[in-house]
Amino acid sequence: MKHKAINVGLIGLGRIGKMHANNISQKLPFINLKSVIDPAPDLEFIQNLGPVESYINEDDVLYDNNIDAVIIASPTPTHYELIKKSIKHKKHVFCEKPVSFSKKEIKEIIEISSGCDTLIQIGLNRRFDQDFIMLKDKIKNGLVGKIHMIHITNHDASIPKFKFLKSSGGMLFDLCIHDFDMLNFLTAEKIKEIYVNGNVFIEPRLKEIDDIDSAIITLELESGVLCSIDSSRQTHFGYDQRVEVFGSKGMVSVKNKSENLSFYSNEKHTMKSKKQYSFIERYQDSYIKELEHFYSCVSSGNKPIAGLENILTAIKVSAAGEKSMQTNNPEMVKL
Amino acid sequence: MKHKAINVGLIGLGRIGKMHANNISQKLPFINLKSVIDPAPDLEFIQNLGPVESYINEDDVLYDNNIDAVIIASPTPTHYELIKKSIKHKKHVFCEKPVSFSKKEIKEIIEISSGCDTLIQIGLNRRFDQDFIMLKDKIKNGLVGKIHMIHITNHDASIPKFKFLKSSGGMLFDLCIHDFDMLNFLTAEKIKEIYVNGNVFIEPRLKEIDDIDSAIITLELESGVLCSIDSSRQTHFGYDQRVEVFGSKGMVSVKNKSENLSFYSNEKHTMKSKKQYSFIERYQDSYIKELEHFYSCVSSGNKPIAGLENILTAIKVSAAGEKSMQTNNPEMVKL
Amino acid sequence: MKHKAINVGLIGLGRIGKMHANNISQKLPFINLKSVIDPAPDLEFIQNLGPVESYINEDDVLYDNNIDAVIIASPTPTHYELIKKSIKHKKHVFCEKPVSFSKKEIKEIIEISSGCDTLIQIGLNRRFDQDFIMLKDKIKNGLVGKIHMIHITNHDASIPKFKFLKSSGGMLFDLCIHDFDMLNFLTAEKIKEIYVNGNVFIEPRLKEIDDIDSAIITLELESGVLCSIDSSRQTHFGYDQRVEVFGSKGMVSVKNKSENLSFYSNEKHTMKSKKQYSFIERYQDSYIKELEHFYSCVSSGNKPIAGLENILTAIKVSAAGEKSMQTNNPEMVKL
Amino acid sequence: MKHKAINVGLIGLGRIGKMHANNISQKLPFINLKSVIDPAPDLEFIQNLGPVESYINEDDVLYDNNIDAVIIASPTPTHYELIKKSIKHKKHVFCEKPVSFSKKEIKEIIEISSGCDTLIQIGLNRRFDQDFIMLKDKIKNGLVGKIHMIHITNHDASIPKFKFLKSSGGMLFDLCIHDFDMLNFLTAEKIKEIYVNGNVFIEPRLKEIDDIDSAIITLELESGVLCSIDSSRQTHFGYDQRVEVFGSKGMVSVKNKSENLSFYSNEKHTMKSKKQYSFIERYQDSYIKELEHFYSCVSSGNKPIAGLENILTAIKVSAAGEKSMQTNNPEMVKL
Repeated sequence: MKHKAINVGLIGLGRIGKMHANNISQKLPFINLKSVIDPAPDLEFIQNLGPVESYINEDDVLYDNNIDAVIIASPTPTHYELIKKSIKHKKHVFCEKPVSFSKKEIKEIIEISSGCDTLIQIGLNRRFDQDFIMLKDKIKNGLVGKIHMIHITNHDASIPKFKFLKSSGGMLFDLCIHDFDMLNFLTAEKIKEIYVNGNVFIEPRLKEIDDIDSAIITLELESGVLCSIDSSRQTHFGYDQRVEVFGSKGMVSVKNKSENLSFYSNEKHTMKSKKQYSFIERYQDSYIKELEHFYSCVSSGNKPIAGLENILTAIKVSAAGEKSMQTNNPEMVKL
Repeated sequence: MKHKAINVGLIGLGRIGKMHANNISQKLPFINLKSVIDPAPDLEFIQNLGPVESYINEDDVLYDNNIDAVIIASPTPTHYELIKKSIKHKKHVFCEKPVSFSKKEIKEIIEISSGCDTLIQIGLNRRFDQDFIMLKDKIKNGLVGKIHMIHITNHDASIPKFKFLKSSGGMLFDLCIHDFDMLNFLTAEKIKEIYVNGNVFIEPRLKEIDDIDSAIITLELESGVLCSIDSSRQTHFGYDQRVEVFGSKGMVSVKNKSENLSFYSNEKHTMKSKKQYSFIERYQDSYIKELEHFYSCVSSGNKPIAGLENILTAIKVSAAGEKSMQTNNPEMVKL
Repeated sequence: MKHKAINVGLIGLGRIGKMHANNISQKLPFINLKSVIDPAPDLEFIQNLGPVESYINEDDVLYDNNIDAVIIASPTPTHYELIKKSIKHKKHVFCEKPVSFSKKEIKEIIEISSGCDTLIQIGLNRRFDQDFIMLKDKIKNGLVGKIHMIHITNHDASIPKFKFLKSSGGMLFDLCIHDFDMLNFLTAEKIKEIYVNGNVFIEPRLKEIDDIDSAIITLELESGVLCSIDSSRQTHFGYDQRVEVFGSKGMVSVKNKSENLSFYSNEKHTMKSKKQYSFIERYQDSYIKELEHFYSCVSSGNKPIAGLENILTAIKVSAAGEKSMQTNNPEMVKL
Repeated sequence: MKHKAINVGLIGLGRIGKMHANNISQKLPFINLKSVIDPAPDLEFIQNLGPVESYINEDDVLYDNNIDAVIIASPTPTHYELIKKSIKHKKHVFCEKPVSFSKKEIKEIIEISSGCDTLIQIGLNRRFDQDFIMLKDKIKNGLVGKIHMIHITNHDASIPKFKFLKSSGGMLFDLCIHDFDMLNFLTAEKIKEIYVNGNVFIEPRLKEIDDIDSAIITLELESGVLCSIDSSRQTHFGYDQRVEVFGSKGMVSVKNKSENLSFYSNEKHTMKSKKQYSFIERYQDSYIKELEHFYSCVSSGNKPIAGLENILTAIKVSAAGEKSMQTNNPEMVKL
C-alpha cells in the first residue's frame, strides 16, 4: 500500500461528529479513528465503529503521542481553547465552522498558528462539493462573462432544536456563514457591504434571544457585483440549496438534489422526487472529500484550502450583518 | 350574436401599441378598432390591420361620437393629459402602465374619475396571466400556509434602446413596477419598506441619467413578509420571469415558459428549449385577456380589476425605492 | 384588407366539428362559417357562433353557390360519399382523418380528384404542430445524424364512449394512424413492416368487436430504421404525446406539454403541473394552422401538404397492423 | 466490531473485475480481498489495492482454505466450469451475469448446488438499485393500479470493443438480459412471448457474427401485460436507462441520472447536465449493495435474492429472442 494512514482523535459526538466518525470508519481507509471524546458517550454508536478508544476528557487525545490530528466537532464555544491546546500539543486540526463568533479570537489563532507547523483546516465543506466546484470552474472559464448578480437560496429542511439554536451563535453565524463563504469561494472577491432584513416566522422563542429564523440579505462585493440570499431554518419539503450566477453572457446555476429518479403521474398530480432532506445527504460527498483533503495535507505538509483566513473573512460578514439588523441599514464589512 | 362590439381608438403605435392593434384585429372579435393615432404612422402596418382609420391627432378619436373607448399606448409623459381629455369626452380608458411618474398626477386623475362613469383600466397585464392567477389561488387555498418570503426574478431578454430608456422613468418605474404590483396582487398586502441596491452593468450611459440596469431589491410587506427581487435589463438567454412563494407549509413557484417542447442530447451537451424571448411572447395571453376584461367592463359598466389605485400603490413603492437608492438606506413607503 | 375571405360549410358538429366551428368564428378571420349541417343540431352552441345558417341536410351546403369549401367532420363512414359529392359540386374539401377504412375507397377518391381542380386536405393536424415541425427540421439539419430508432408514445387521457369506439374503425385506424403518419412525416420514408401486440385492459366490451385499447407496435421503415409505438386509450393523468428520435449523433425528442408553469413542494410531495388533458388542448394551435393552410391553398390554388396520398399511406399501415393482430406475426405493408 | 469479515478471491480483472476490487478495498470494510486471479495481471492496479495476493491460476484461490468465497468476473465462457469447481471446493460464489449462454448448463449448476450449502449469487446488480427498488415498491403499493404496459429504454453510452462483443454471447444475452430480468423483478411475472426486430447500425462487423447492436423488442407477460424495450449499444450522449410502468391508475417512471446539478443558459442554448456516462457510474451504489448482500448471505447462510433461477428465467427469454430474430416472428418462451 502506498498510503500511510494517520491516527486521529475526534472530539464531540453530536450529529456532525457522528457523521465524521461513520465516514472515517466506513469510507476513509487512510484515516484511522483511534479515539473519540464525548462527555456523555453514546456507547452503542461507538461500539459499531469498530475498535476505537472512548474517553470523556480531551487530554486523552491531546497527550496521546500516537495521534497525529484532532477533529473538533464539539459545540462552537469550545473551539477556541481546543485549537490552541491542539497547536500546543502539535496536533494538526480539523475544526468545524464557525470556530468562534469573535473575530479577535480567530485572529489570535491565526497569529499563533502562523509560527508553527500545525495545519488547521476549517469545515467549510461546501468548498468540496463537486457541483459548486464545477460552478466555480464554469465562472472561471468565462461562461457567464463578467458577473453581474448572484442569488443564493439556503433553506434548512427542519429547524434545529431550540437548545442548539441558543448556542449556535445565531442564524448569520451558523447557517448563512456558508453562503458568505460561498460568495468568496465562487468569485475570489470579498464582500464589501451587507444589508439584512430578518424575521421570526418559525420558532417564536428566537425573539427572546435576538435571533431570527428567516432572512433576506443583500450584499455587494468589492467590484460592485450584487448578491442576494434567501435563507430560512425550515422548509418542510427538503433541503433547498440553490445558486444562480448571472453575468454579461448568460447564467449558470446549481439546482437541488433529488432523493431519487422517480416520477409519478395520476389523475390528480404529476409528481417528481422530493429534494434531499438534510445537509448530511446533500453534502454527503463533500464531507468525505474535505477529510480526504485533510489527510492529504497532513501527509504532505501542504496548507489546507479551507483555512482560518476563510472563516475569518466570513465571520466579518456575519458580524456586519448582525450590526445591519440592529441599525436596519446596510453596513460596510470591515476588511 | 349575443355580444355587442365596442368601437375603440388606439393612441400610439409603438411596440406595445402595435401588439394591441394586432390582438384586436386578429383575436378580439368584439372589439372593433375604428381608428389609430400616431404622429408618424407606419402605413404598411396599418394597412394589414384591415379597414381602420388612421390619424395623427388624438382629437380625431376624442371627438368621434362613434368611439366608446380609447387605448393609450403612447409614451408615458403623454398619459396624464390624454386620460384627462378622455374623461372629459366620456371615453372609457385603457392606459398602459405606469400612467405617470408623479403620485400627485395619478391621485388627481383618481379624483376626477371618481365622480363620473368613465371606466379606467391600467395595463397591469400580469394580473391576467393564467399562471400568476393560479399562483394567487394556490396561496389563497392555503397551499403554502402563512407566507414567509417571496422571491421574484425579473430580467428582460435584451435592453431597450437608450432613447426609450431615457423617457421610461427609470428601471424602478418602468420594469420593477410590475413586481411591486405582483406582490400586492398575490398577497393583497401593501409594501411597507423598500431597500434598493442598484448598479449599471449593461448600458454605461444610464449613469449619466442616474438610472440603473440591474438591481437587488429587499421589501417588507405590512405583515412582515420578506420579499426580494432580482432584476435586470438584459439576460441574452430569454425573458427570465419567475416567482417563488415560500411559507409555513411549503413553496409554490412559477417557472419560465419554454419556446417549445424539444430536447436534444449529443456527445457534448444535453439541451432543452430556450426560454421565451420577450414580454410579448411570455405574456401573449394576458395581453388578450386584459382587453377581454376591458371589453367586459365597458359592456357591463363594472369597474376593471386593474385600476388607478393599483398603479398608485405600485408608484409609491417605485418612488420610495428611488429615494432608497439616493440614501443607500431602506425607506418606508408612504401609504 | 388584402385577404379575401372564403365561405365554408361545416358538416358534422360533434366534438371535433364544434372545435373547428369555434376556431373559425373566433380565430380565423378570413374563413367565414356560412352554414353548419348536423342531423341533431345543438342550437345553443350554434347561436353562440354568431350569424350562421343551420341545416340538417348536407345538400344545403353542397348546392349553395356562395360556399367555396366544405369541412367534413361527420362520422368516418360518411366521408367517402361526402367527398365524392363535394367534388361533383366543385367544393374544395377539408376532411377529418381517416377518410375511409378501405384503401380501395381512398384510391378511388384520389383518382376522381386528380382530374379536377378541387383541393382536398386531410385533417392530419400533427403535421402542423410547431414542435413536430421543429423536430423534423432538426432531423433534416443533421442533429441526430443517421436515424437508428424512433419511439412514439401516444396515450389518450380518457377513453371515448363505446358508441364512438364502435364506429371509429378501431384503435389502429382511429388513434395510431396519427403515429403512422408521423413516422412518414418525420423521415420522409414509408413503413415496410408492422407487428402489433394489442390487448384490452380498459373497456372490456372492445373484445366483442375485435378491437383493442392498448398496443405495442414495432415497425420497420424502408431503410431499416426501427420504430416502436406505445399506445393506449386512457392514461387518467393527461394526454401523453412524446416522440424520441435516436440516431448516430444523438437524440432529439418532443416531450409533453404542461397545463401551466407552476411547481409545488410540501412535506409530502414535489409536484409539477399536470400534462394537458386532451388533443384539443395539446394540438390547439395545429388545428388553427391546418385551417389557415387550407384557406391559403383555396385562395392560391396550391395543393395542400396533408393530402389523400398521406392518409392512404397511413391506412395501408393500419390495415397491415390489423392483419398482424390476426396472424400474431409481423406483416409487410403493401406499398 | 460486531461484523466478522469474510475472505474472498476475485477471478478476472477486466473492467468489471477491477470495479469490484476497488469497491471491496475502498467501500466494503467487511469483505477482505485476499487474492486476485488474472492470466495477465495489471500489477500497478493490484499494488494500489493494498496487501492482496496475485496469482494467474484459479487453483490458488480454490485450494486456499482461508478463502470463504469467490467472485467470478472472468469471461462468460469460463463461468460454468468455475462455478462447478467452486462448489466442489465449498466456496460460496458471486458470479457475473449471464453465467452461461446455455440453459442446460445453468440447469445443471442449479441441480448440483441445490444439494449442498454453497450459496450462489448472480450479478443482477439492477435488482439492488435504489430507484428500481423504489419503483417496485410503488407498483406493489398500488400506485399504478393494474399494470397495462411497461417500456424500458436501455442504451449503452459507447459500444464495447469488437473483441469483447465477439465473446459476449450477443446483445440479447449480454445487454438486454438485464431488461428481461427487470421485467421479472418489477412484476414478479414471467415473460410469455418475445418478438425482436434487431439491426446493425453502429458496428458493421457484427453482421459477420450474426449479432446486432440495436433492437426493438416486444414482450408479453404471463398475465397479458405488454412490454417494449428500445435498446442499443451506443448513444454518444450518456447511459440511457429509463423505465415507465403504465397502469390503470397512472404511470411511475425512473428517469436518467445526471452527472451534476448544473444548468447553463446563454444566447444560443439552455443546457442541463449530461447523463451519467456508464454502468459503472449509474449503478455505482447497486454494485456495492449487491456485494453487501452477498456478504450478509454468506455470514448468515441466507439464500441470495439474485440467484441462478433468476438468470435462468432471463436466459430463456434471450434464447427465445434469438430464435425470434431467426424466424422474424414472435416466439413463446419455454417456461
